[in-house]
Amino acid sequence: MRIIIDGFGGDHAPKAVLEGSRMAVDEYGVSIIMTGDKEQILSCAKENNISLDGIEIVHAPSVIPVDAHPQDIMTEYKDSSMAKAFELLNEGKGDAVVCAGSTGAMVVGASLMLRRIKGVRRATLAPIIPSETGCYMLMDAGANVECRPEMLVQFGVMGSVYMEKIMKIASPRVAVVNIGAEETKGRALELGVHAMMKDSDLFHFTGNIEPRYIPRGDADVVITDGFTGNVILKLTEGLGKMIGNALKDIFKSSFMGTLAGLLVLKKVKGFKKKMDYTEYGGAPLLGISKPVIKAHGSSNGVAFKNAIRQARDFVKMDVIGEITSSMEQLRQQNKERQNDGTV
Amino acid sequence: MRIIIDGFGGDHAPKAVLEGSRMAVDEYGVSIIMTGDKEQILSCAKENNISLDGIEIVHAPSVIPVDAHPQDIMTEYKDSSMAKAFELLNEGKGDAVVCAGSTGAMVVGASLMLRRIKGVRRATLAPIIPSETGCYMLMDAGANVECRPEMLVQFGVMGSVYMEKIMKIASPRVAVVNIGAEETKGRALELGVHAMMKDSDLFHFTGNIEPRYIPRGDADVVITDGFTGNVILKLTEGLGKMIGNALKDIFKSSFMGTLAGLLVLKKVKGFKKKMDYTEYGGAPLLGISKPVIKAHGSSNGVAFKNAIRQARDFVKMDVIGEITSSMEQLRQQNKERQNDGTV
Repeated sequence: MRIIIDGFGGDHAPKAVLEGSRMAVDEYGVSIIMTGDKEQILSCAKENNISLDGIEIVHAPSVIPVDAHPQDIMTEYKDSSMAKAFELLNEGKGDAVVCAGSTGAMVVGASLMLRRIKGVRRATLAPIIPSETGCYMLMDAGANVECRPEMLVQFGVMGSVYMEKIMKIASPRVAVVNIGAEETKGRALELGVHAMMKDSDLFHFTGNIEPRYIPRGDADVVITDGFTGNVILKLTEGLGKMIGNALKDIFKSSFMGTLAGLLVLKKVKGFKKKMDYTEYGGAPLLGISKPVIKAHGSSNGVAFKNAIRQARDFVKMDVIGEITSSMEQLRQQNKERQNDGTV
Repeated sequence: MRIIIDGFGGDHAPKAVLEGSRMAVDEYGVSIIMTGDKEQILSCAKENNISLDGIEIVHAPSVIPVDAHPQDIMTEYKDSSMAKAFELLNEGKGDAVVCAGSTGAMVVGASLMLRRIKGVRRATLAPIIPSETGCYMLMDAGANVECRPEMLVQFGVMGSVYMEKIMKIASPRVAVVNIGAEETKGRALELGVHAMMKDSDLFHFTGNIEPRYIPRGDADVVITDGFTGNVILKLTEGLGKMIGNALKDIFKSSFMGTLAGLLVLKKVKGFKKKMDYTEYGGAPLLGISKPVIKAHGSSNGVAFKNAIRQARDFVKMDVIGEITSSMEQLRQQNKERQNDGTV
C-alpha cells in the first residue's frame, strides 16, 4: 500500500512528517510518497539522520499558507505540496492522502480534484474525540457552517460505516446534538433531521444527545451542523488545555505537589494518554471518493504515524466502497418514499 | 430589602431553599418572602430546626413541574409557587425574585407577568461561568433558540452593564462566539452582528471569540444564539463532570492516590472551588423590568444563599435602571442611523 503525505502540512513540517513516515514504513510496512520541496526534504532528512528507505519524494515547489483562501488551491497554489498530493491520488499513484495543512483548502481541494461519492451533498470533516468510555466521531466539525437536514442524514450513514469498520464498534449509536432529549426540541434543522432519521434502517439512530452527555460517551457518532460541531471541538480542546494547566499547577508548583505527582504518575499519565486525540490519528474527510485524512496542525512524528495507520485501515477496510453502497441504498429509499408519496 | 424566593424550585426544595434563606437573612440582613405550600414549608422548617425569623411565607398550593409546557404557568399553574413569586414582585411586595424552577416557565412567566424593559426584544438567560482567570457571562444560554443580530446587540448592552455593576469589571470585553477570529467568518447571524456591533459605543466590543479561548477567559461577556449558548453551557458542565471523575479516580482509587490527594488537598480544593459556578450565585434573567435570578436546579443551601446575595446586588446597583437607560441610548442611535440613511 502507498500512502501519499503532504510533506509541508502542519506546524512541525517537514521534520515531524519525515519522522512519522519513517516509523510508519518500519512498523506498518507501507510505502510513502511525500510531496513538497525536494531539496528541503532531503536536507531535513540528512540533518536529522532519517533514512528515506521506502519514502519517495515528489517535488512540489510551493506551500499553501493556512490563511490563504481555500479556493486558491485550484489557482495560485495548484503547484503546492497539498495540491500535488491530491493530484497523485487522483492519478492512482497512491491509495490515500494524509495532510496536516489548512482544513478549508483540503475540503475544497479534495472535493474538486477527487470529487465526492455519488449522491453525497457535502464532504464532512469528522474528527474522533476521546470520551470517558472510549471515543466518538464528531461530524461535521467545521467544513459546512450551515447544513440542511438531508446532509445530516448522510453524515449519519457515513459516520456509522466508519466507526464500524475502523473503530470496530458494532452498530454504532448515531445521535443528533440537541438542547433537550425530546423530539420536539431544537431548531428547524434538528426537527427536520429527527423526522428523517427516526425510521432509517441504514444506521442505529438513538435520538438526540444533550451536549452534557457527549463527553460521557453516550453516542459513537455525534451529528450536527459545522458551526455547532466546530464549537464542540474547539471548546473541548480549550477546556482540555485548562485542565492540563490545572494539573500542572497541582503537581508542579511545590515540593509536595511533585511528591504527590510521583505517587500517582501512572494514573495521571494514563488519563493524559486517554485524552490525547492524536492517539486516534487524524480526522477523515468523509464523502470524498478516495481516502483522505486530515492530521492535526500540531502533529508530531507519532501523530503522523497514527494518521498514516488510520489511512491504511481506511483503505484496507474499503470504507469508501461501503459508504458508496450505503449512499446508493439511501438514494433508493428516498426514491421509493417519494414514489409512495410519503415524502 | 425583601427578596422573594420560590420555595419549591429545584431538586432539594423546600429544605435547601429554607437553609439558603436562613443564611441570607443572618448574613446579609435581607428579609425573605417564600412562596409555596405553607404547611409543608412550616413542617420542613420545624423538622430541620430552621428558624423562620425574617422569613415570611406566602401560600401557593401547586408547583409547576420541570417538564410542564412553559406556557402552562399562565393557566394550569397560575397558582404555583413560581407564578405567585412573580405576582408578588409585580405588585411591589418585594424587590427581586430568586427561583430554581424550570427555565422555560421562568422566561415565559417573567416576560408576561413582569414584562420586558422598553425596547428589549427578548429576555435572555445569562449564567456566569468560571474561567481560568475569573468568570464570564454567557448569553443567551438557552432561552432563545434562534436569534437575530439585533437581539445579540441587545445582549451585549445588557451583559456589559451587569458585569460592570455586579462583577465590578471595568469596561467588560464583549465578544461574539465564532469559528474564526476574522470578521468574514461565520453564519449570517455572526456576519450581521459584527457589522452592527463594531462601531457601538455602548459597550467594549472585542470582536469574535473562538470557543477554544472561552475557558481561558478572553472575554467577559460571551454572546451567541440560545442554541449555541446552551451547547457551550452543557458541554462545559459535562466536561467538568468528566474531569471530576478523573480526579476521583486518580486520588481515591488506591492507597498511593489517597496519600497523594492529602499532599495536594489544598490545591485540589482550591481548583474545585474556583470551578464551582454556584459560588457566583445563579443566572440573571436579563431584559425583564424587575430583577429575577434563576438558581441552578441542583442548588444546595449555600447556592441559594449566593443567589440571594446576587439578587440583593442586582437591586442595590440598580442594574435595571442602567439597562433601561442604555436601551434608550441604543434606540436613539438606531433612529439617528436610520435618519442618516446609514442603515
